[in-house]
Amino acid sequence: MTPFDAAVYADRRRRAAAQAAAAGLDGILVTPGPDLRYFLGYTPAADTERLTMLAIPAAADGAGDPVAVVPRLEEHDMHLGAVGGIETLAWSDGEDEHAVAGRLLRPEGRYAVSDAAWALHVLGLQRALPASSYAAVTTVLPLLRAVKSPEEVARLAAAGAGADAVFDEIVPRPFTGRRERDVAADLDALLREHGHEQVDFTLVCAGEHGADPHHEPGDRVIRSGDMVVMDFGGLADGYGSDTTRTVHVGPLTDREQHVHDVVRAAQQAGVDAVRPSATCQDVDRAARAVIEDAGFGEHFVHRTGHGIGLTTHEPPYMVSGEETPVEAGMCFSVEPGIYLPGELGVRIEDIVVAFPSGVPGLADAPGAAMRLNTSPHEVVVVE
Amino acid sequence: MTPFDAAVYADRRRRAAAQAAAAGLDGILVTPGPDLRYFLGYTPAADTERLTMLAIPAAADGAGDPVAVVPRLEEHDMHLGAVGGIETLAWSDGEDEHAVAGRLLRPEGRYAVSDAAWALHVLGLQRALPASSYAAVTTVLPLLRAVKSPEEVARLAAAGAGADAVFDEIVPRPFTGRRERDVAADLDALLREHGHEQVDFTLVCAGEHGADPHHEPGDRVIRSGDMVVMDFGGLADGYGSDTTRTVHVGPLTDREQHVHDVVRAAQQAGVDAVRPSATCQDVDRAARAVIEDAGFGEHFVHRTGHGIGLTTHEPPYMVSGEETPVEAGMCFSVEPGIYLPGELGVRIEDIVVAFPSGVPGLADAPGAAMRLNTSPHEVVVVE
Repeated sequence: MTPFDAAVYADRRRRAAAQAAAAGLDGILVTPGPDLRYFLGYTPAADTERLTMLAIPAAADGAGDPVAVVPRLEEHDMHLGAVGGIETLAWSDGEDEHAVAGRLLRPEGRYAVSDAAWALHVLGLQRALPASSYAAVTTVLPLLRAVKSPEEVARLAAAGAGADAVFDEIVPRPFTGRRERDVAADLDALLREHGHEQVDFTLVCAGEHGADPHHEPGDRVIRSGDMVVMDFGGLADGYGSDTTRTVHVGPLTDREQHVHDVVRAAQQAGVDAVRPSATCQDVDRAARAVIEDAGFGEHFVHRTGHGIGLTTHEPPYMVSGEETPVEAGMCFSVEPGIYLPGELGVRIEDIVVAFPSGVPGLADAPGAAMRLNTSPHEVVVVE
Repeated sequence: MTPFDAAVYADRRRRAAAQAAAAGLDGILVTPGPDLRYFLGYTPAADTERLTMLAIPAAADGAGDPVAVVPRLEEHDMHLGAVGGIETLAWSDGEDEHAVAGRLLRPEGRYAVSDAAWALHVLGLQRALPASSYAAVTTVLPLLRAVKSPEEVARLAAAGAGADAVFDEIVPRPFTGRRERDVAADLDALLREHGHEQVDFTLVCAGEHGADPHHEPGDRVIRSGDMVVMDFGGLADGYGSDTTRTVHVGPLTDREQHVHDVVRAAQQAGVDAVRPSATCQDVDRAARAVIEDAGFGEHFVHRTGHGIGLTTHEPPYMVSGEETPVEAGMCFSVEPGIYLPGELGVRIEDIVVAFPSGVPGLADAPGAAMRLNTSPHEVVVVE
């Protein structure tokens, strides 16, 4: 991905150091993956068992001195790759990497650690410093990457526009007589044509397969009369896209149209729930209420949405019990669905950016979620 | 990858249950990745934050009842994908997944957990069951996947033969005037032509870049007089290849030939160290001694080798301090190198299968490591 200015990464580290201090933590331990890309603009060439970890010490004023523990073999690449540079502490094969990393930590400290850090390493740190303690970043600092900067929203908007272009190009193509996997392959190729360097999923669920929200596209041949759920996305210049539309091969039955109408109304209700003082579970409740009122409550079997950024699934989650307030700049999916076993499924998904207390620059605008996807919400009939 | 018979997976689970009991553990918690492929033949479609975990209870007689915790959304796919089937315990969005998984565990139990399990999940289990404890699989059961069955050795041999074919095809091609990244792209394409469904690395390190063992191939143009280190591999039908050869553009200087001779002798010494009662560090010591005796000790900056199987880096490690005995059926790399900053690097790497107490079927054969790579060890001159 195109790196941001070095100042962006330094600022993120300062904010994180201050958030860690406010949460009563001694620091944040960042391992390879989206967290390390976020704070250092760096991705090691290979995801190996060797410990790589950026330690950001907590500091109320944000002025800590982050240090990266790195295998000596990778030290040179890290200096080349880290945007703006970083102090490193290298360890060599045969050394106890966790003891080396432990030198950067308080023996009785409490640290947040990247969700996807290897168990090998968090357990190794617990062994090296038995009085230290750890919590997953999303457990103690769930909002660390949740509020996007304008530059990040712009990347997400570009990724969403790419996904919308994919939808525009797929619907005129023939569906009847092709297998789910053929359409999925088209979606994959189209995503790459439209700026995606990584494709994470291209679900194509025809007819009764639509009732499984995570059905993997297979040899099922699409035929006239099928509802077809298409859910696709990936990373474009480092930021995620994720959109779902449900199309129909030929004219719909009244029941199919009704189910689609209910989901469409639920999706709109989820978007409309982004208002002053809304919490994440309010978004879920609003979408779910529409589906429950229509009598399909038991067939909406997943949460309403998830955050998106450097990954396609991250906090905040729009799910019952999640009382986190929706903040300006949060970007997440709103994707209710109805799944009727043996019959069909319908899901509609957009990525939105939240402005619960009003849209910046529009003094009179009410709180709102702005959609980053603009593909049509009415059901598209394909051939 | 082509699955093995269901009996293979069931047998692996039984052996693991017995090993866990022998190690005083209450069970093994297996998460997506190579461990789950090993024990269940299953890979979820996406690596997400949702908990998927196979719990194998310890049982001295191996007769436990493994159960897989799985997101409800993925339960259907797991039943389709798990070879031979498995009992599942599904959880839904909004439930506490760690509390659900905790129902399968003893509150004060001690468990081995996959090395690459997410910190989110191991910390979540610690929170759900505060009296339980965890250790990384490779810390407490390092040999769980280390000894390969004949069927696995056959897959590794096929992967190695594919890598050898890649070397055969790359050396007649022109090197002079091409960039490192061009040769690396050729290696990538050739690996795929020769049976690899995944390419993990294609290092091409010309001249002074050879002094960085993990140099990423870039725009450096290869020219006459360059030593060129090529280290490449990936997965073929699920099992890893990993080989390194150092070629030279045009005739070598005496010093270059000498350095290559030393590395070649060190590599042979490492292979020859696989004898009755040899430990992993003996392999490292034997290779390192040759390089130290030649006065290059400080320039051999990494361990001598690593295990290989469903991943390209796994236990056992051929490194100082590793006192694990080398067992029949262990497969690992032997890859000493010399790295002269600003000048050049030389590394030679083969994958071997160990028979420290004699080769099966050859009554009079001494202990030995059989190479799964047969590319030439003398330096190949390219143009």
